[in-house]
Amino acid sequence: MALPERILLGPGPSNPYPEAMQAFQRPVVGHLDPAFLALLDETCDRLRTVFGTANPLTLPISGTGSAGMEAAFVNVVGAGDVVVVGVNGLFGERMCDVAGRCGAEVIRVDADWGTPLDPAAVLAAHPAPKVIAVVHAETSTGVGNDIEPLGAGKGDALLLVDCVTSLAGIPVDVDGWGVDIAYSGTQKCIGVPPGLAPLTMSERARERRVERPQSWYLDLGMIGEYAATSGARKYHHTAPISMVYALHAGLGAVLDEGLDAVIARHAECGRLLHEGLDKMGLELFASEGHRLPELTTVKVPEGAADADVRQRLLVDYGIEIGGGVGAYAGKVWRIGLMGHGARRRNVTLLLAALAEVLGR
Amino acid sequence: MALPERILLGPGPSNPYPEAMQAFQRPVVGHLDPAFLALLDETCDRLRTVFGTANPLTLPISGTGSAGMEAAFVNVVGAGDVVVVGVNGLFGERMCDVAGRCGAEVIRVDADWGTPLDPAAVLAAHPAPKVIAVVHAETSTGVGNDIEPLGAGKGDALLLVDCVTSLAGIPVDVDGWGVDIAYSGTQKCIGVPPGLAPLTMSERARERRVERPQSWYLDLGMIGEYAATSGARKYHHTAPISMVYALHAGLGAVLDEGLDAVIARHAECGRLLHEGLDKMGLELFASEGHRLPELTTVKVPEGAADADVRQRLLVDYGIEIGGGVGAYAGKVWRIGLMGHGARRRNVTLLLAALAEVLGR
Repeated sequence: MALPERILLGPGPSNPYPEAMQAFQRPVVGHLDPAFLALLDETCDRLRTVFGTANPLTLPISGTGSAGMEAAFVNVVGAGDVVVVGVNGLFGERMCDVAGRCGAEVIRVDADWGTPLDPAAVLAAHPAPKVIAVVHAETSTGVGNDIEPLGAGKGDALLLVDCVTSLAGIPVDVDGWGVDIAYSGTQKCIGVPPGLAPLTMSERARERRVERPQSWYLDLGMIGEYAATSGARKYHHTAPISMVYALHAGLGAVLDEGLDAVIARHAECGRLLHEGLDKMGLELFASEGHRLPELTTVKVPEGAADADVRQRLLVDYGIEIGGGVGAYAGKVWRIGLMGHGARRRNVTLLLAALAEVLGR
Repeated sequence: MALPERILLGPGPSNPYPEAMQAFQRPVVGHLDPAFLALLDETCDRLRTVFGTANPLTLPISGTGSAGMEAAFVNVVGAGDVVVVGVNGLFGERMCDVAGRCGAEVIRVDADWGTPLDPAAVLAAHPAPKVIAVVHAETSTGVGNDIEPLGAGKGDALLLVDCVTSLAGIPVDVDGWGVDIAYSGTQKCIGVPPGLAPLTMSERARERRVERPQSWYLDLGMIGEYAATSGARKYHHTAPISMVYALHAGLGAVLDEGLDAVIARHAECGRLLHEGLDKMGLELFASEGHRLPELTTVKVPEGAADADVRQRLLVDYGIEIGGGVGAYAGKVWRIGLMGHGARRRNVTLLLAALAEVLGR
């Protein structure tokens, strides 16, 4: 069955770093093999660097980014716990759903899609929530939410942050910002195929965990005793060995280039794309000042047929971009410049191809 | 960081088929790309063949085998539901834990580790359970449990079966046996690195699903609308693209050889190993007549130090075998001949190496 080579400029997955692809060829060893455990430890260390944390409980969850979201909630939210969720996009909505399934009393604080959350409103929503949860980089809208004021004002609450599309793409400072639980996905700015969810949890949150989470598979008490322990390892589930190899190598590529340099590369590509779309007469969707460089939303111009344009980009150019979701299906495009895909040549190519397809 | 080449003869992961490893090099495309969806559909068809089912809801869960277990329970078990679990090993124990976290009233039917479950006792445990759950091939003990009588006698109950270590290693006949929900892992007899959990669910079970499972990530209602639908695909979570490639290729290798031939190869290797261990004067742990060919348990002989022997096999020969678990830690070894590893040469090598290490 033939598979085409795509330039992946949608909301993820992005094209992986070659190092991550090569790592798939490393020989499979057992999940309790000393050689694997050393590599896993190094992977967790690399994750600490990109998350900006010293949290001992920092590890890859054995599922995609959404498993990271579920692991984050299910370990700290029990029946009746108050959870304030900032919602300005699909992934904030998803947080409400996931928290609700944990039995939480969910208090939503909405902002219009395309605009950022108001941190003061999030902090004022309840006097003593157990958890305050927000998405750092909303993949559905291209908006970045400010995390730092939430950490400063969280009081006794645990601050839970979705870093799926932000980690290794824009600055993330878990310890500096006072984030208690953060998770990500591998297939965005980390530049690794989808399959794992990097996660970190502060000691403060760890002490306030639900004793017996409703999920066995995502129980961080047990997973931590396998993946992030200085003591004897306890088998929990068979780690996804080859995906861990790929993550280890992708993080290696990021850190070899330098985290700051990688983030600067994302910033520069985003700036060039935003300028180019503007010059083409297209209108950006996310509010100015809150636009993500790694995920750009642009309104489908009048006279253009959303699906036709994306289809032509895919078929004629081998370029994937994303459509809008929710109320914005058919109304915006989502263009990702993430990880290995955050390259100036991809900006140039996409702008030129889009101009050809749109006849501009 | 160096990684050794191991001959993986433990309880899993097994050495993958070369086809599965090569498939990792296929280019990553998006999870909504028509090319990926066609490959995913073919993967689901191949899973139907190995499971022996026509169930439309047959797909890979985006996690390891234990995620398959959790997906199986969480979608059909709600608070107060009666679940009968046959327990004769670690994975039966785990089922009780997982079902309990779903709020089930769990009724255990125990058999000694190393012996099979008594189907009549399992069926007699409760007059009207919602679910009867058993492990087909107990990886912790090397015992195979009979599934067919449970399907014949299940009445109104749903029959839920763990096929992690049985699928593509010994005969599995989901539709013929009346199994309603079955799941597996990729890293055993399917011969693919760990990371996905093939799962199938009958239409009968599908109609009796929990409306809003406590797990969002494993909600088969939503996953089915993405992965196993004849209608429009709905995005749920980003599929682990590269792992699906590997599974697709591993299943291809199995079906190219022929499922019957693969199962015969496992049977022959297991027979040779059992005979060889017996000839060496070692005692098999699992009761005769119920021994799995793909996973053999053998008692650590008197005078031999469990961990030392395994360490010497690993370091001097590059061979991994597994230790015992639970009450049998230090008392048995677990030897897997699974997937690509189920080869006569591996039997010969292991027997010879073990004889050298034990001085027999």
